[in-house]
Amino acid sequence: MSLDFSKLAQNYVHSVNPYVPGKPVSELKRELGLTRISKLASNENPLGASPKVAAAIQLHLSEVGRYPDGASYDLRNAMAEFCHVSAENVLLGNGSNEVLELVARTFAGAGDEIIFSQYAFAVYAISTQLVGATPVQVPAVNFAHDLDAMAAAVTDKTKIIYIANPNNPTGTVFNQKAWSAFLAKIPSNVIVVVDEAYIEYAQALMGESYPNVLLDLESHPNLMVTRTFSKAYGLAALRVGALVGHKDAVALMNRVREPFNINAFAQVSAVAALSDQAFIQRVVELNHEGMKKITNTLDESNIEYIASAGNFVTAKFGENAEAINQQFLQEGVILRPQTGYGMKEWLRISIGSPAENRHFVEALYKIQNS
Amino acid sequence: MSLDFSKLAQNYVHSVNPYVPGKPVSELKRELGLTRISKLASNENPLGASPKVAAAIQLHLSEVGRYPDGASYDLRNAMAEFCHVSAENVLLGNGSNEVLELVARTFAGAGDEIIFSQYAFAVYAISTQLVGATPVQVPAVNFAHDLDAMAAAVTDKTKIIYIANPNNPTGTVFNQKAWSAFLAKIPSNVIVVVDEAYIEYAQALMGESYPNVLLDLESHPNLMVTRTFSKAYGLAALRVGALVGHKDAVALMNRVREPFNINAFAQVSAVAALSDQAFIQRVVELNHEGMKKITNTLDESNIEYIASAGNFVTAKFGENAEAINQQFLQEGVILRPQTGYGMKEWLRISIGSPAENRHFVEALYKIQNS
Repeated sequence: MSLDFSKLAQNYVHSVNPYVPGKPVSELKRELGLTRISKLASNENPLGASPKVAAAIQLHLSEVGRYPDGASYDLRNAMAEFCHVSAENVLLGNGSNEVLELVARTFAGAGDEIIFSQYAFAVYAISTQLVGATPVQVPAVNFAHDLDAMAAAVTDKTKIIYIANPNNPTGTVFNQKAWSAFLAKIPSNVIVVVDEAYIEYAQALMGESYPNVLLDLESHPNLMVTRTFSKAYGLAALRVGALVGHKDAVALMNRVREPFNINAFAQVSAVAALSDQAFIQRVVELNHEGMKKITNTLDESNIEYIASAGNFVTAKFGENAEAINQQFLQEGVILRPQTGYGMKEWLRISIGSPAENRHFVEALYKIQNS
Repeated sequence: MSLDFSKLAQNYVHSVNPYVPGKPVSELKRELGLTRISKLASNENPLGASPKVAAAIQLHLSEVGRYPDGASYDLRNAMAEFCHVSAENVLLGNGSNEVLELVARTFAGAGDEIIFSQYAFAVYAISTQLVGATPVQVPAVNFAHDLDAMAAAVTDKTKIIYIANPNNPTGTVFNQKAWSAFLAKIPSNVIVVVDEAYIEYAQALMGESYPNVLLDLESHPNLMVTRTFSKAYGLAALRVGALVGHKDAVALMNRVREPFNINAFAQVSAVAALSDQAFIQRVVELNHEGMKKITNTLDESNIEYIASAGNFVTAKFGENAEAINQQFLQEGVILRPQTGYGMKEWLRISIGSPAENRHFVEALYKIQNS
């Protein structure tokens, strides 16, 4: 007996262009049997997480059989305190991926338009496809969001604008002045989602000129800010992201999320991670050193790259980028191809530990001299 | 400035009747300052998980900064081997909640009908509401699924039938003969989802007469079976559920799920848990003893209950059930009200550890004599 599931599926499913994750270390081990592997493919934190996280997990081990707190009471309160908002302004997700999706699933559908930039983080397009809304992709300028053009793209059908600052995979960033000018142009019934997954790195780099978007929440109920614990906080394995926004919007999205979307280990780990800001300081400093090392090497090798405010840099390896990526894999260095973003000639390099960065540099020299 | 988010939201959002979780121990502690608390509210495993799970988590602690394997390679293979299917037949979710939702989100929408039983697990109705489909609730008979009536409720618009065996919160179960008769009546283009969250307990109780639903997968591509690691396997904190079904259906649902929906600790823990079937044997035996203790107490107290094949029993406390529930809370015993299921006079009691079961019995006597 046979059944054509593709006919049985909702139409939107066929339009989804699934996310392609970085190649896992375990997969490369299976394929090539290598032992020295440096994964510089997923913008992970080479320091892992604060030691307080392991301690929190140890304390929670005996509770593995118990359901998580569906309301994430402690983490919502910790996040609220950290962002100077109230707990009812905080929505938590299984990574910021889930909160980004929840905005679309709650507020957009067929016939609505969702605006995002060319080269913007893939999840904005996927979230749009998942609800059958119309994607409006605004051309980038020098790989950066063109905020003027994005504001000009707003129509009566626009429901949501997704903005990344800095953006992944380009690392481009906008400043306070550009942000304020943009926000002033957006109608008050259009939801603006600012994805600040890499804020810790950008803030350290830019200081005062990095926009303080959270300050605009009170005057702009249509504004939402997302954060993640997967980057500087080093909890990618556990999946925690957050959205800060108007309490009425958060209440509606809470109706759509699964009751136990944040696992219990993620909750205790994120609370512990938030409490150790000295660790974040070290993370940011290590990233700064690593970024210098990698960009100096690219400069010396005459490889073009996009200046990045994140913990990664995207570089132009040219027409042979895919072949060069395969050579890096043979050397045990996992980079991230950018074909899905229409940047076939580019590879993204995450800033790793000093040893991982050296591994990248050695592999690059070897490939160049082969 | 104000913004009416309820108007901005999609219509379906207002129809969602959110899941009400069991009261967390931490919440009761905050509210009443109690120290002796027995949570018998969420059908959790009082033994927790196999010791192999803690060992697996310890080994993975240093990897907390790394993203999970988005393909869940090891766990999908382990689950496939356990169920005698291939890895491409296995879809994993953040709890079985997510896989149950993914079926609806992939295959149903406005205008489609989804059938489930009165008193069936709340997530079936929620999954229906989340996609704006039409719920068709079939009256139960003696609190059990009426499979004949459910088959008779199929129309040209039926997309999905959700069935629980055993059902939560009633604990009712159907046997192999009833299952075979039901399946024979269902058109081949209607998806049948059998939720076997409590299979380990029911199988131990019923032996051969418990339906072997997985055996029908090959002849019935429209059949899907869901399992959870939150009950007998004791991993509720970590969120892992699975669906076994036709590979084409699984491939489509994989397009809809988030790329990193299963956290890394959940993946290694579930693999470890699956490998320790001797632990599951002990879990099932402890549950059997606890069930006898609780039902004997209910019998002696002349309290009616629904015979249950799960790790819980739902009992009729009468018109004062809510007041009695509050008295139990004052004693530190958390039970589960059933008002959401239209069973206002009933409370569900999860089978706990011997000490937790004694706590329930002591509290019951105290309340009865007060």
